Amino acid sequence: MAKISPLAPAGFPDIPAIPGVLLSAGSCGLRYEGRKDVLLASLDKGTQVAGVFTTSKTAAAPVHWCMRSAKAGRARALIVNAGNANAFTGLAGEKSVQRTVDKVASLLDCPKSQVFVASTGVIGETLPDDRIRKALGGLRKKLQPGDWPGAASAIMTTDTFAKGAFRTVMIGDTEVTIGGIAKGSGMIAPDMATMLSFIFTDAKIPAAVLQKLVRRGADRSFNAITVDGDTSTSDTVLLFATGAAKHAKIASAGDAKLRAFRAALEEVMVDLAHQIVRDGEGASKFVTVNITGAKSAKAARSIGLTIANSPLVKTAIAGEDANWGRIVMAVGKSGEEADRDKLKISIGGVAVAEKGMVVAGYDEAPVAKHMKGQEIDIDVDLQIGRGAATVWTCDLTHEYISINADYRS
Amino acid sequence: MAKISPLAPAGFPDIPAIPGVLLSAGSCGLRYEGRKDVLLASLDKGTQVAGVFTTSKTAAAPVHWCMRSAKAGRARALIVNAGNANAFTGLAGEKSVQRTVDKVASLLDCPKSQVFVASTGVIGETLPDDRIRKALGGLRKKLQPGDWPGAASAIMTTDTFAKGAFRTVMIGDTEVTIGGIAKGSGMIAPDMATMLSFIFTDAKIPAAVLQKLVRRGADRSFNAITVDGDTSTSDTVLLFATGAAKHAKIASAGDAKLRAFRAALEEVMVDLAHQIVRDGEGASKFVTVNITGAKSAKAARSIGLTIANSPLVKTAIAGEDANWGRIVMAVGKSGEEADRDKLKISIGGVAVAEKGMVVAGYDEAPVAKHMKGQEIDIDVDLQIGRGAATVWTCDLTHEYISINADYRS
Repeated sequence: MAKISPLAPAGFPDIPAIPGVLLSAGSCGLRYEGRKDVLLASLDKGTQVAGVFTTSKTAAAPVHWCMRSAKAGRARALIVNAGNANAFTGLAGEKSVQRTVDKVASLLDCPKSQVFVASTGVIGETLPDDRIRKALGGLRKKLQPGDWPGAASAIMTTDTFAKGAFRTVMIGDTEVTIGGIAKGSGMIAPDMATMLSFIFTDAKIPAAVLQKLVRRGADRSFNAITVDGDTSTSDTVLLFATGAAKHAKIASAGDAKLRAFRAALEEVMVDLAHQIVRDGEGASKFVTVNITGAKSAKAARSIGLTIANSPLVKTAIAGEDANWGRIVMAVGKSGEEADRDKLKISIGGVAVAEKGMVVAGYDEAPVAKHMKGQEIDIDVDLQIGRGAATVWTCDLTHEYISINADYRS
Repeated sequence: MAKISPLAPAGFPDIPAIPGVLLSAGSCGLRYEGRKDVLLASLDKGTQVAGVFTTSKTAAAPVHWCMRSAKAGRARALIVNAGNANAFTGLAGEKSVQRTVDKVASLLDCPKSQVFVASTGVIGETLPDDRIRKALGGLRKKLQPGDWPGAASAIMTTDTFAKGAFRTVMIGDTEVTIGGIAKGSGMIAPDMATMLSFIFTDAKIPAAVLQKLVRRGADRSFNAITVDGDTSTSDTVLLFATGAAKHAKIASAGDAKLRAFRAALEEVMVDLAHQIVRDGEGASKFVTVNITGAKSAKAARSIGLTIANSPLVKTAIAGEDANWGRIVMAVGKSGEEADRDKLKISIGGVAVAEKGMVVAGYDEAPVAKHMKGQEIDIDVDLQIGRGAATVWTCDLTHEYISINADYRS
C-alpha cells in the first residue's frame, strides 16, 4: 500500500452509532489479499434515501440499478465491494447486480428494490459476485452499530487513508447525528478511484426532501472538488435517513427546523470531499480557489473548476510558483464572461494582479512564502457580478504521473 | 535551450519563395540573448487576409487589434515578436500595439489597419516595444523572399524546433504555393507557448473566401490538437493571399477550381498542427484519436478532445499501458451521447472492447507492442451515428511536470 498522503487528517473521527443503522465489514478476496473489501449496511424499516450519481454516459451497472431504485426513496440495505467496479461489463454486469441484490434481499428479508449496490475497482473485468454472495451470511451475523472505521476501510481502493466525518445537530429539541464515509483519491481513476460516499442520519426526513438536500450538498462539496478533472463511471453519493429520531415532522427542504441540519449535512459532505482531495494522487498541496464577482454562481463554479483543472496552474503550484499568468489564462479559457481589465487575483490573501495588469509595486516575497506551504489560497474577483463559488483541488506532481503511468503494469 | 523533441521531423522543409511576400527576421533583445526574436513580413498591395483567434475571454492586446483589422480583409505587413506576449498588460498593452503599428505603417508606407501584430512570451509584463521599433529600420532593409527558416525561428519560444510546411497546387492551369510557419509547444502555456501560425499564398482569393477556408482548416487542424487542454490568451492563425498568381477569378469557397487548393491548405495546416503536438512539452508519443459513429461531427470532436485531454488516458500512454478502461471513462465524461453496449475501442488497429465489454479472447500482446512505439492510434466507434472526427495529442510525462513546475523559477 502507498504511504499515507502528507495532507491526511490526524486520524479517523469518532463517529457515534446512528440509530437504525447496522454495519458489517469483511473480506471476500475480490482483489486485496488480507484487506477488507466488502461492506454490508442494514437499515431499519422506513429508512428514506436519496442520491446523486455520475453524469457519465458510460455509467456502470450498479449505478443504473441505484438510480432506478432511488426514485422510490426507500432503503433497507447497502452492499458495497472494492476491487472490481463491475463497469463496462455489459449484460453480465447487470446480472451480477441482480444476483447480489437477490441474495441480500433474501438474507435481510426486504424488497429487492430497497437494496442499494456500489462497486469500485478495476473496470472491464467480470465481477465474481459469487465471492460477495458467499461472504454475505457471515457479514449479516456480524452486523453491529458503529463500526465506522471498518466500513470506511472496506470501501477503499487506492486511498491511502480511511475517510469519515460526522456532526450532531438539533432538529427542534431533538439531537440527531449525521455520519458519513467516503472513498476516492484520483478524481477519478476509473480503474480504482471512483468517488463513493454514503451518509447516514437518524433524522426523519422524507425522500423528496432528502433529494433536495443531497443535491444541494453535493454541488457544494463533491461536485466542487477535482483532482484531475476525470469522471468515474461509478461515482455515487447516497444519503440515508432512518427516521429513528423523534422530532417534529419535516415537510420541505426549506423548513426552518432544518436550518442547522442543512448546514451540518453540508459540513459533513464538504469534510469528506476535502479528504478526497487531500488523498489526491500525488497531492502535496491542498488548494482552495475562491471565485467572487462572477456573472452568476454557475459561472463562478465553472471558472473555479477551469482554474482547478488546469494542468498549467496545478504544475505551477507543485513548483511553488505564484504564476498568476496561468490563472488569467484559465479564467479566459473557461468561456465564462470576464473583463480582463477588471479581474483581480490574490494569492495567499495578497493582491497580485488587478485592472488588467500586475499590481503596482508588486512584492512577490510574501506570495512566494505562501506558495511554500501545504495550504494554498487563490482568490479571483471578476468584479462584474455577484456570482461566487469555492472549489478545491490539489497540485499536479511527478508522483501523479508515476501512479497513473505505472498503475496497471 | 531544451534538447530537440524526440518526435521532431528530420528537418525544416524547403519552402519556396512566395510571390508578394518578403520576410525579415532579426534580434531585438526582448528576452533571448543571441536568438532571433522578431519577424517582419511585407506583403504586396492587394493582399487579402483572414484569421482565427483564441476564444479566450482574457485575450491579449495584439489579438484584439488583429481581430478588428481582419474584418476589413486587407494586409500589407505582419510584425511578430517572441519573448513577451503583451498579454494582461492593460491599457499600456494597447498603446504598445498602437506605437508598433504606427512605426511599421510609416516604414512600409501602408495604412495602419493593414498592419497585423502578434506577440508571444511571458504575460503580465509590459512590452518594451521601443526595442522592436528600434529594430524595424534594419529589418526593413533586409526584407527578402524566402527566409522561411529565419522567420520560423524568430517566433519560437519554448519550441525545440522551427516549424514550417508547404504545398504547391494548381488553381486551374496556374501553380500556386501555400507556405506556412507555426510555433507552440505546450498547448498552451500562456507564459511562453502560445500557438501562432502564419500562412501565405500567392493565390488570388478574396478575404471573404479566405475566411471560410481558414476557419474550416483551423477546425480540422489547430483546433483538433491538444497538448494539455489549456488555452492561450494569444492564439492567432492568419492566412494571407497576395494575389500575385494569374489564375481565374475565385468567387466562392465552394468553387470547383479551389478543390485542390482547399485540400492542400488543410494539409499545410494539419502538418503544422502535428508539428506543434510533436513539440508538446515532454511529449514522448504522438497520439491519433479517431472517432467514428458519433451522433454528429461536433459530438465526435468533443469525444475525441475529451479522450485527448484526459490526464488518465495521457499518463497511461506515457506508461505504455493499453488501458482502454480510461478511454471508456473519457467517452462517458464527454457528455456526448453514447451507448455503453455499442461502444467499440481499438488500439493500434486491434479491437480491444466492444458491445459493452472486453472482446472475447482478447490478446493483449499486439496491443502492448503497439503501445511501445512512438505513434499511438486509438479508434473509438460509437456505432450510433455518422459523426466522425480525428484529433491529435501527445502523452503526459514526468518531463511535462518538470518543464511546467519549474519554468518560471
